[in-house]
Amino acid sequence: MNQDQKKNSIEQLGEFGLIKHLTSNFISRNSSSIAGVGDDCAVIDRDETSFTLISSDLFLENIHFDLMYVPLKQLGYKAISASVSDVYAMNGMAEQVTVNIGFSSRFPLEAIEELYDGIRRACDFFKVDLVGGDTSSSSKGLMISVTAIGKVDKHKVAYRSGASSKDILLVSGDLGSAYLGLQILEREKSVFLSNPNIQPELAPYDSLIKKQLMPEARIDVIQLLDELGVVPTSMIDVSDGLASELIHLCESNNLGCVIHEEKIPYQEDTMLVSTELNLSPLTCAMNGGEDYELLFSVAQADFDKIKGNPYFTPIGYFTDEKGTATLMDQSGQIHELKAQGWNHF
Amino acid sequence: MNQDQKKNSIEQLGEFGLIKHLTSNFISRNSSSIAGVGDDCAVIDRDETSFTLISSDLFLENIHFDLMYVPLKQLGYKAISASVSDVYAMNGMAEQVTVNIGFSSRFPLEAIEELYDGIRRACDFFKVDLVGGDTSSSSKGLMISVTAIGKVDKHKVAYRSGASSKDILLVSGDLGSAYLGLQILEREKSVFLSNPNIQPELAPYDSLIKKQLMPEARIDVIQLLDELGVVPTSMIDVSDGLASELIHLCESNNLGCVIHEEKIPYQEDTMLVSTELNLSPLTCAMNGGEDYELLFSVAQADFDKIKGNPYFTPIGYFTDEKGTATLMDQSGQIHELKAQGWNHF
Repeated sequence: MNQDQKKNSIEQLGEFGLIKHLTSNFISRNSSSIAGVGDDCAVIDRDETSFTLISSDLFLENIHFDLMYVPLKQLGYKAISASVSDVYAMNGMAEQVTVNIGFSSRFPLEAIEELYDGIRRACDFFKVDLVGGDTSSSSKGLMISVTAIGKVDKHKVAYRSGASSKDILLVSGDLGSAYLGLQILEREKSVFLSNPNIQPELAPYDSLIKKQLMPEARIDVIQLLDELGVVPTSMIDVSDGLASELIHLCESNNLGCVIHEEKIPYQEDTMLVSTELNLSPLTCAMNGGEDYELLFSVAQADFDKIKGNPYFTPIGYFTDEKGTATLMDQSGQIHELKAQGWNHF
Repeated sequence: MNQDQKKNSIEQLGEFGLIKHLTSNFISRNSSSIAGVGDDCAVIDRDETSFTLISSDLFLENIHFDLMYVPLKQLGYKAISASVSDVYAMNGMAEQVTVNIGFSSRFPLEAIEELYDGIRRACDFFKVDLVGGDTSSSSKGLMISVTAIGKVDKHKVAYRSGASSKDILLVSGDLGSAYLGLQILEREKSVFLSNPNIQPELAPYDSLIKKQLMPEARIDVIQLLDELGVVPTSMIDVSDGLASELIHLCESNNLGCVIHEEKIPYQEDTMLVSTELNLSPLTCAMNGGEDYELLFSVAQADFDKIKGNPYFTPIGYFTDEKGTATLMDQSGQIHELKAQGWNHF
């Protein structure tokens, strides 16, 4: 096998296939290990009434962020937000984070202070405590590793699995806007690189850019579900695009799903700017990523508690057609979904 | 302030000063956050009888490891070992790990499989479960982030603080060997770079190189302390050199200490090879780092339980002389210790 074939095999596996492949011969031996690889968080059984939730994320310069247009303060905020989002995706509340950073000598103290200022603001907003971490130099670039720690009542934990056929699929907020924010920032970067004297025009795109740079993980949704007395039968956060998350849920539940194109929620700016950029809002929602909304299912019996709530949009339902996540377009045609999202390889 | 002055201020703060500086205005708001920045692990209060321990570490290519002489299998093993060592340093047992890796396109699938093979071997040895993590591409190099999760009985937790004046300081195993292993590997790398036809001669240095490449965090020490009925009054793992760890303990306890030079434990190879390399074994122990032994204190009343045990060497004691970690050399002269170890900046 030559180098190219070897590399191809990583590309063929993709991020999720690779993790499955690498961890297939690991065994679990501690009774406290309830769930592991393949959900948003590790689930640890430590006490009678609640599970401890732990999620780790790595954020790498020029892979996950571009410092040409991402201010360090907002990067710090986003790293925390993206990490606690995984705890919310288990229907839990985050309580602690640890943050490790590596950075090269090109970063002065003021830059690292900015990053930590953003981390502190996010800790304040999400009411989590920074309880550890360290700093290191790196040979090149900035890298951030965040571990989020939370808890969830045992009878309220929402895994990716647990749903039944006909359970209703809902999504919080709106989709596609973070991806459009990224496209605007990339466009203005190109303009700036070709002529540094042209000032970027970002004001008309404020809401999209804010969603890209400072996404707010949906702590409010978890609180609201609790108030409504609804426990999702399955849940995942929308970080890699709706298509990818729907496929994860279908695979985890050994079910299929049907999503109605006309139900997918967009904000007004998403409709306007996607037209301006010649993109379909559906593509932005399906394959864009980084919306950090919550995608979840509820039993039909629970649907009345949640129906009409402006926080949530019902977009479809699970079916018995194992492993086939599908979209019904506005003309009634069915399309099978493929994850094209955030594949770093 | 110009660029150089700014960079200097990071250098002046050093790794530990920088973390203290960056986190000084963070507040703690959750009652479950017991201890945080400034100990080996975050300590989370989740149940009646035990604390949950969490530690995260970042391992970066060309900062923490050099793939010219570190085989990926051993790197995977070491990353887990170094991480669970932080749990042992709280007198706890590790039960889970999560592993995130970023790697550039120069790594074929086989390389990543080797890394995970080492991770799996370490998980087997330390009886921990891999419960999460992901993979990502990186623009350059390999980076590994490991989070170790463990627990400790509340009445057995050993913080860096908690010691009293006259408590005896002990260390497990021997010191300085991992640093000498590194020196040998660096020497053979230079030889190889100047003449690739010369085969490295590593066999005579097996024990030192193994200690550098595959350190075994002292799970056995924690089990032994439990059997002996000894709870350390303070503890830390020796990852950055004995001098640095003694200074940490003195600062955390608001005490001083005296260490006797002739008590510091070395293995025979350390004595032989340090002579060959024209290094003092004392320097290797004090400022070398990566031994992953445990440095801890016990109350005088407990000393009889542990005295003469071949696993431990008493090397000195705490004093009332706040903040002055000192070494008494073989002639009876006192020297104040300075941390020169593992400062990445």
